[in-house]
Amino acid sequence: MFTKRRGLLLVLSGPAGVGKGTVCAALRAQTTEIEYSVSATTRAPREGEVDGVNYFFKSREAFERMISAGELLEWAEYVGNYYGTPRSYVEQTLDSGQDIILEIEVQGARKVRAAFPEGVFIFLAPPSLQELRNRIVNRGTETEDVINERMNVAEDELELMSMYDYVVENDEVDRAVSRIQAIVTAEHCRRERLTD
Amino acid sequence: MFTKRRGLLLVLSGPAGVGKGTVCAALRAQTTEIEYSVSATTRAPREGEVDGVNYFFKSREAFERMISAGELLEWAEYVGNYYGTPRSYVEQTLDSGQDIILEIEVQGARKVRAAFPEGVFIFLAPPSLQELRNRIVNRGTETEDVINERMNVAEDELELMSMYDYVVENDEVDRAVSRIQAIVTAEHCRRERLTD
Repeated sequence: MFTKRRGLLLVLSGPAGVGKGTVCAALRAQTTEIEYSVSATTRAPREGEVDGVNYFFKSREAFERMISAGELLEWAEYVGNYYGTPRSYVEQTLDSGQDIILEIEVQGARKVRAAFPEGVFIFLAPPSLQELRNRIVNRGTETEDVINERMNVAEDELELMSMYDYVVENDEVDRAVSRIQAIVTAEHCRRERLTD
Repeated sequence: MFTKRRGLLLVLSGPAGVGKGTVCAALRAQTTEIEYSVSATTRAPREGEVDGVNYFFKSREAFERMISAGELLEWAEYVGNYYGTPRSYVEQTLDSGQDIILEIEVQGARKVRAAFPEGVFIFLAPPSLQELRNRIVNRGTETEDVINERMNVAEDELELMSMYDYVVENDEVDRAVSRIQAIVTAEHCRRERLTD
């Protein structure tokens, strides 16, 4: 009665500082069925980040060669660094029937929406803008200028919420993860994914 | 940042014999946050069923008075009996911000879809038509003629799946309940329910 289950392309985005990385890491730890797409980036590794696990860390030159060769599903320059998603990994994963999650910033999500309208787009939102600032400040890695720039960008990004299918409030990491897991389960039950 | 959470009208339907009642009872037992809409019916109580809990059991005369007075959100005649949903209970529950689930047959769901397009419509499906027949036979309360009539109706009802938002396969009750709980969580995160 049911057609073969297809992989879902999940796109988790939201303003810088909202906690996308933390939520994605917790989701990974709790949900073995969702493949995690590893992005390429030119930004410097933060303490503890591992190449090929957290990101593929690339020089600008190497990243620009990937752009030219069409090896990225999307890419963007953000606060002076490139971020992008290797295309082949995503496509192979979906073809095998496996769900995959992309954790990307808002401009990248916009490009993926154009390329994969059937993707499931989840906007991770802070409980408030004040709380977002607190989180960026508490991370302790940014200067005051960078914080202000990020807040301006974040306010613009919140206006892009309308292109998303879901808005998940990141009030607590575990609650956000549970909501994303529920979205994945629900999307697999959506009638238009099950019938022709 | 977020508007007040509104109640969801969940409509659980599907062919007779698929296990709507069992799934709804298990959902009730596990999920205190979802109000359960009690239907009115003219069919005779089955063993163990309690008036005002499983159904409001009505005479045909009393039910027809409710129809005339516009006290039912939907009603239908099915295998010789009336089934219907008292309107006021549903409306008060949604207004208070509380989710409510209606367990109704397919023709009733169709009428509710017209009246509440923003409802969440879930089709409970059997793993196969053979399995549906087995369940009706094993219930042991129906004659062979009733079973055949139900199977014909069920085949027609499966064609109505296209008006539903979700299809939940009732392979095991606990799995079906988990999927419905996930759908409720996901629907509360849907962007169009959160932003204007």
